[in-house]
Amino acid sequence: MRVAVLNSPGDVEVVERPTPTPAADEVLVRVLAVGVCGSDTHYFDHGRIGRFVVESPLVLGHEASGVIEAVGGSVDDSRVGQRVSIEPGVPCRACEQCLAGRYNLCPDMVFHATPPVDGSLAELVTIHHAFAHPVPDSVSDETAALLEPLSVGVWACRKGAVGPGSRVLVTGAGPIGLVCIQVARACGASEIVVADLNEARLAVATELGATRTITSGGQSIADGYAGRSAPEVLLECSGHPGATVDGIRALAPAGRAVLIGMGGDELPLPLSVVQERELVVTGTFRYAGTWPAAIALAASGQVDLERLVTGRFGLADTAAALTAARDTPGAIKSVITPQS
Amino acid sequence: MRVAVLNSPGDVEVVERPTPTPAADEVLVRVLAVGVCGSDTHYFDHGRIGRFVVESPLVLGHEASGVIEAVGGSVDDSRVGQRVSIEPGVPCRACEQCLAGRYNLCPDMVFHATPPVDGSLAELVTIHHAFAHPVPDSVSDETAALLEPLSVGVWACRKGAVGPGSRVLVTGAGPIGLVCIQVARACGASEIVVADLNEARLAVATELGATRTITSGGQSIADGYAGRSAPEVLLECSGHPGATVDGIRALAPAGRAVLIGMGGDELPLPLSVVQERELVVTGTFRYAGTWPAAIALAASGQVDLERLVTGRFGLADTAAALTAARDTPGAIKSVITPQS
Amino acid sequence: MRVAVLNSPGDVEVVERPTPTPAADEVLVRVLAVGVCGSDTHYFDHGRIGRFVVESPLVLGHEASGVIEAVGGSVDDSRVGQRVSIEPGVPCRACEQCLAGRYNLCPDMVFHATPPVDGSLAELVTIHHAFAHPVPDSVSDETAALLEPLSVGVWACRKGAVGPGSRVLVTGAGPIGLVCIQVARACGASEIVVADLNEARLAVATELGATRTITSGGQSIADGYAGRSAPEVLLECSGHPGATVDGIRALAPAGRAVLIGMGGDELPLPLSVVQERELVVTGTFRYAGTWPAAIALAASGQVDLERLVTGRFGLADTAAALTAARDTPGAIKSVITPQS
Amino acid sequence: MRVAVLNSPGDVEVVERPTPTPAADEVLVRVLAVGVCGSDTHYFDHGRIGRFVVESPLVLGHEASGVIEAVGGSVDDSRVGQRVSIEPGVPCRACEQCLAGRYNLCPDMVFHATPPVDGSLAELVTIHHAFAHPVPDSVSDETAALLEPLSVGVWACRKGAVGPGSRVLVTGAGPIGLVCIQVARACGASEIVVADLNEARLAVATELGATRTITSGGQSIADGYAGRSAPEVLLECSGHPGATVDGIRALAPAGRAVLIGMGGDELPLPLSVVQERELVVTGTFRYAGTWPAAIALAASGQVDLERLVTGRFGLADTAAALTAARDTPGAIKSVITPQS
Repeated sequence: MRVAVLNSPGDVEVVERPTPTPAADEVLVRVLAVGVCGSDTHYFDHGRIGRFVVESPLVLGHEASGVIEAVGGSVDDSRVGQRVSIEPGVPCRACEQCLAGRYNLCPDMVFHATPPVDGSLAELVTIHHAFAHPVPDSVSDETAALLEPLSVGVWACRKGAVGPGSRVLVTGAGPIGLVCIQVARACGASEIVVADLNEARLAVATELGATRTITSGGQSIADGYAGRSAPEVLLECSGHPGATVDGIRALAPAGRAVLIGMGGDELPLPLSVVQERELVVTGTFRYAGTWPAAIALAASGQVDLERLVTGRFGLADTAAALTAARDTPGAIKSVITPQS
Repeated sequence: MRVAVLNSPGDVEVVERPTPTPAADEVLVRVLAVGVCGSDTHYFDHGRIGRFVVESPLVLGHEASGVIEAVGGSVDDSRVGQRVSIEPGVPCRACEQCLAGRYNLCPDMVFHATPPVDGSLAELVTIHHAFAHPVPDSVSDETAALLEPLSVGVWACRKGAVGPGSRVLVTGAGPIGLVCIQVARACGASEIVVADLNEARLAVATELGATRTITSGGQSIADGYAGRSAPEVLLECSGHPGATVDGIRALAPAGRAVLIGMGGDELPLPLSVVQERELVVTGTFRYAGTWPAAIALAASGQVDLERLVTGRFGLADTAAALTAARDTPGAIKSVITPQS
Repeated sequence: MRVAVLNSPGDVEVVERPTPTPAADEVLVRVLAVGVCGSDTHYFDHGRIGRFVVESPLVLGHEASGVIEAVGGSVDDSRVGQRVSIEPGVPCRACEQCLAGRYNLCPDMVFHATPPVDGSLAELVTIHHAFAHPVPDSVSDETAALLEPLSVGVWACRKGAVGPGSRVLVTGAGPIGLVCIQVARACGASEIVVADLNEARLAVATELGATRTITSGGQSIADGYAGRSAPEVLLECSGHPGATVDGIRALAPAGRAVLIGMGGDELPLPLSVVQERELVVTGTFRYAGTWPAAIALAASGQVDLERLVTGRFGLADTAAALTAARDTPGAIKSVITPQS
Repeated sequence: MRVAVLNSPGDVEVVERPTPTPAADEVLVRVLAVGVCGSDTHYFDHGRIGRFVVESPLVLGHEASGVIEAVGGSVDDSRVGQRVSIEPGVPCRACEQCLAGRYNLCPDMVFHATPPVDGSLAELVTIHHAFAHPVPDSVSDETAALLEPLSVGVWACRKGAVGPGSRVLVTGAGPIGLVCIQVARACGASEIVVADLNEARLAVATELGATRTITSGGQSIADGYAGRSAPEVLLECSGHPGATVDGIRALAPAGRAVLIGMGGDELPLPLSVVQERELVVTGTFRYAGTWPAAIALAASGQVDLERLVTGRFGLADTAAALTAARDTPGAIKSVITPQS
């Protein structure tokens, strides 16, 4: 089968590899769509993210969908032919975190496209059967692939307890900000204010559910809330320390700050604000148990993931796909179809 | 001023009463719309509900909106002229329940139209300033009145933890069932199955967000879920013991049953089902802290309360308004405008 | 190796069976102590519990401790020699309930001494490595075995949100009631009222932390609370419908009723009480993720499990052990030591 | 009556003031004991805390107990003679925060000894009847006064979800750290590690429930946990940024950091640690609804507040009382008896 491997920063090539064999509790999936994440682009550019270093050729991609082509010995073979969305991280399922339902915090997580684990930019990939989630026909292959970033938004809204009537501030209108907006709207949030530097992104934010926008260069978040009710939830998707602190300072008493964007090792937390308002500050690391909700939101049309797709590529064009969102004005999300 | 009083079962008349004077922490509201609740009709028919007995002429009505005409001494007089929705129960605000935020459980609650406390079927009514909630212009007088039943739905969905992707079963498609459907949809529920005997009501349920219906006479709830995923939340709005038990039995493991409909003193709870699935069974008693969310949901158009109104009446026609929903096929909710 | 099998009601015998071989993810445990549970006695007496029927010789026992004698291929062999408490139910770890941390609700649970799964009344038994919990030396073999019933109490107190200052009512002072009392006390409950018919059991309850007792024959629960603050939590351990309903009726507004005792299929739930006080009624089914807390409570001396042991037996005396608690006045819990 | 007023930094004198008259919903309390808080000492030393400035003579003291001497017109006069613990902050009870049960976040809170509101270092003081909490005879006057700092600990343990088996780290063994230790122990925490620079304080910490101590000067918190299970809850009572960050870094995945100690405006939060472990960081601001639990814990002997008292003073010796904890080696908490 053909796979796209990253040999070193900037060097991606399509090579032949042996078709994988599913273990007893795995399924073999023919991959039909793979979304490109900022982390894929970061590996392409730098060959590493923090302590994770690409030391041998790595298959990128962890937002994938496909159809089950074969199953391992202990999996019901009626699943062959089933269309699935792949949850790309398989935890040990036996440690204290896993047994508590917090499997995203499993220290032995095996996660696609995180060195040395290969990802899904391949014609075929294996995954534990419970992490290949069936999708109904109303969910397209592209949408099924993008249930992964949608899960990030579902998880963030759970952490922030977004509900009917919530006033939400989203900082950063990149792909994750745009899914957070949509999930917050689906949760019943009545006010979704979005702050970003980029007017074009804010226009998409408005299209997808933002009720008001703040153009960060021209207006501070504090000014954007002058004379208005403060937000109850911050969904921080920019990874920018200044925006993060401004967002936290904007929160109402008992507000929740959910820090999703990765933005360095240290944040100057406004301690007395956190104390006097009893704010809750937390971060997210991937997600746990989000696929059922994500599938339901996509199948019912409550969210629109295809709107995020601004470029479609074959496997041979992986390098172009990896850099499109970085280099193309207006680009949001690239999708690669490994069979073409 | 004119008020409509219930003298005895079946005997409502419009009489003159002195205009009330707001206490220091109260506002005086000119009432513009009052929804009729099933409890108003029950007092009209029977002169009592349980231990609450109409012993002297009682003003009915507890779903009201209006405009502030005067304020008490300790209330900011800039509020005069403000359009408001009236939250009809004022708790003591000093007991353990109140201080814990569970003011609906206050033993000293003073609640409109509950003997001997008069309600809002009057030209003017007084209420504690914090319970006269300002509404924006986008919320009509009728909608502002119906934020009261909407609050019942908001409270029920909070108790049931309805969220994005939830599978919800609503038993009973009367006015409360119809608001529960709308709030559940606003909370992101992806499946809202509604069971009722009445096809016309089910048609309205579908219009307002039900994703599937079960006609109770022809099909059991169990049959309605055969081969399908079990619901995670039951919002019981029928008050019918059979439907309640069937709904509880239908729930998925870890499901929540929220019992809203009043249905007698005793329910044959399927104990082993509750234990083996660790179901959570609870009831609701009015609501607490729901108006902000209710206003937001109505103002943003996430719910449509005017769709519930099937009859509009002047104060002189109160008796007709009280019986319309009981007697008129297809009627859902009557609204009285006390100024006309 | 020797095991005690139940051939049919009343017929237990010790037989030789082949030593089991641990699977790759299992450990082989030499069993040092096994507590006798009421369910073991019920199988001995009736050959069934509900839909679970003893159709071929069954090894009873699911409260066990021991020492690891061998490990499967994927388990760290440094565990050989480790003293462990056995959590007797191994879930599939792949279904929606398991991944959500509610593994006790797994439909594919394999649970010791539940037909057709054998239990631990054997010299040796195998178990998934994650369900053989290491215990420190300060926890005796008997105590390590009784972490299983202790877990029932930990789970119940979690469900009931027992915390510092809580007022708790425990109905039924059998072995499970006695662990609930101890866990409630460890959680900081300031008032623990215990109701039972049996004065001797109430004396033990007082010794283990009950702050007041109600002798059910002579005084109703309602009378026992006359003039006093109502309890906030009911831990129902009697399985008696009358006590259960009386306990629920006694609860304060916003109270929680946790139904632990098994007591038939149907309970006459006081619906209007549940609604007017917004009580939360739930049941427990085994436990999930309780061993770490149970070990900590036992190791620190916050609970005393050896106090429950009123009879000690060798494997050959299994029949006597199974009937002791049923037949012996004052008996609470028997422990069998399969090596003797 | 006599009161002790702070005229300016370092200048406290006893003066005569008119006896206050209780408003309709207030009680008049003869003050029997007042604990000295670090904030009292800070006002004495600096004349201000942040934006709160002593601009006219201020009565200090907000940890008080006494006996009701008279009641306002709407208070049951059977309360005269009742021994009470005073909750020193009275919220508006009508804003969104109050109605939600978060009255500590009320923007219109009136709090004793916070300029310009006078405190309780007086022979008599008035307070809203609901904030004068009756105490049983088993609770001494001193203990009743110290229910205020105990409440800080109760609130912190609630925020941190301390429960049976919890592993807790307390940084700072001053008066608040010492109540946190005691409440954590009462909540069932099995491990309570306490870090402080001061060996004498650590000795008291051990006496009151610490299971292990870390002497901060000689050992880092990280080293103190080398080879051991990480704590699940941090109760930060030192206000020292370095200890706070070290404590956060020590937390286990899904851990909670509760920041109680006031320590400047900004904290260098280890963002990637918060994200990768999904830590929850929050602060506390006073407390809400803690007196019932605090009374129960004190009455039952689960906590020992008198152990904290290291100096007893008459009203005339207020200046000495205010500086004792600052200046006297081994001093923890001073108590003033305004009647002497």
